Amino acid sequence: MITVQRLDLTDARVMIDAAKAKAAEIGVPMCIAITDDAGNLVAFERMDGGKVTSTTIAIDKSYTASGAKKATHEYGDASQPGKPAYGIASAIGGRLMVVGGGLPVMVGGACVGGIGVSSGTPAQDMEVAQAGLDAILATL
Amino acid sequence: MITVQRLDLTDARVMIDAAKAKAAEIGVPMCIAITDDAGNLVAFERMDGGKVTSTTIAIDKSYTASGAKKATHEYGDASQPGKPAYGIASAIGGRLMVVGGGLPVMVGGACVGGIGVSSGTPAQDMEVAQAGLDAILATL
Amino acid sequence: MITVQRLDLTDARVMIDAAKAKAAEIGVPMCIAITDDAGNLVAFERMDGGKVTSTTIAIDKSYTASGAKKATHEYGDASQPGKPAYGIASAIGGRLMVVGGGLPVMVGGACVGGIGVSSGTPAQDMEVAQAGLDAILATL
Amino acid sequence: MITVQRLDLTDARVMIDAAKAKAAEIGVPMCIAITDDAGNLVAFERMDGGKVTSTTIAIDKSYTASGAKKATHEYGDASQPGKPAYGIASAIGGRLMVVGGGLPVMVGGACVGGIGVSSGTPAQDMEVAQAGLDAILATL
Repeated sequence: MITVQRLDLTDARVMIDAAKAKAAEIGVPMCIAITDDAGNLVAFERMDGGKVTSTTIAIDKSYTASGAKKATHEYGDASQPGKPAYGIASAIGGRLMVVGGGLPVMVGGACVGGIGVSSGTPAQDMEVAQAGLDAILATL
Repeated sequence: MITVQRLDLTDARVMIDAAKAKAAEIGVPMCIAITDDAGNLVAFERMDGGKVTSTTIAIDKSYTASGAKKATHEYGDASQPGKPAYGIASAIGGRLMVVGGGLPVMVGGACVGGIGVSSGTPAQDMEVAQAGLDAILATL
Repeated sequence: MITVQRLDLTDARVMIDAAKAKAAEIGVPMCIAITDDAGNLVAFERMDGGKVTSTTIAIDKSYTASGAKKATHEYGDASQPGKPAYGIASAIGGRLMVVGGGLPVMVGGACVGGIGVSSGTPAQDMEVAQAGLDAILATL
Repeated sequence: MITVQRLDLTDARVMIDAAKAKAAEIGVPMCIAITDDAGNLVAFERMDGGKVTSTTIAIDKSYTASGAKKATHEYGDASQPGKPAYGIASAIGGRLMVVGGGLPVMVGGACVGGIGVSSGTPAQDMEVAQAGLDAILATL
């Protein structure tokens, strides 16, 4: 048997609220998704004005980050033409996201979940995701 | 041009909170999804203990209810063997849900969104969805 | 080599206009799709107030009717529990529609296209599809 | 509640007719799709000789432009190797299109829909989409 830790809904809400506060601060309405250690969705919010297309993208960034225990922008670097992970962007029916904005939540060396943000530039998405990540790490 | 009204994120949170309260009252942790008038996801929460498989089912119940302006259990009746809508359950890649737990939010004769609930029995899902629907209608 | 006949865009517009007129007459805003002999979409219209979920359903009814050279309600009969085609409703990723509202356009024994209608009851969808079919047959 | 404006079917037909006129002028039969503000299809036409593969591509270009409130060729620039959005092209099951030919319809700062064109070169697709966009903006 393996005993695992994972984000619960209270954790997810802490992350979403912090991410929304940062999104409001930078003036970009975002789609924000939180997944657990298994990549399954725990909570999601599309702020008023967030992009319809970013609904799926935010969920898939979080899925990728928590499932692969890796920030999505790390895949962005590794999947450039000529690099070893080239082509990975279309894996899993396109669900594997290599664009910045997906971050894993690592606790004691283990991945307990992830956050995915979309609607702004990748830099904005990463900033808002980081705010959500910082908020949960600060509670531990 | 058509001018339409749709649920915003504040409305969605009112609905989720009311649905969660009802779910807690009956002791069944639920997946709860809110979509806008176009069937696009606005907010989602999986309560601790909610079923992983119910994540997609709750989202698709809400999508069906808001997109078709109809409760999902109405499709359940109409799609029984020998009935006119038999077979509709697998439409749209299986997204069209005919199991109870999806309700449209009708305001002034127009559909402004929907709620979808899954993890319990269909009767429990319907009860929790109704609590979310009642909550938003009470604010109008 | 095989020489085939198929609906062109002018034919498709004749069918859509006739179907829309019937839909207006019965007071049900519809989604209407026309496909060619290969099942590929030629034209589509969602009338104001047509269901979002019916977009895909209308296209898939037309795809089924033209691809299988058969009215979708014929599959509805043949796919009832205990019947030979039971289970066919979920074929092709759920694209094979067995609910009424899809009709093939047969000319001289050959299928040259199809029409699919959705948003009303199956009986209403069939009535509107028939109006589209009658209109094109009347031009021949 | 949010109150939004969206393209109706009359608007969509104005756009398709203008796009078809431009396509005829440059001698390239096109697939032309119009979506509403939520990315859902309102109308579609494949001109005689338009590419079968372009059916889905035109619909997805319009979906992307209206859902992301952005021209698809803007994604084309931002998603080149080494650029921040590299890899986005395969998002949403490949529906997110980064090839030119998808344009949002912006009215008063809000996105009310989109147009997607495919079958020619990206430059031709963009020219035809622009003709459709110009036509609707001229009616306002």
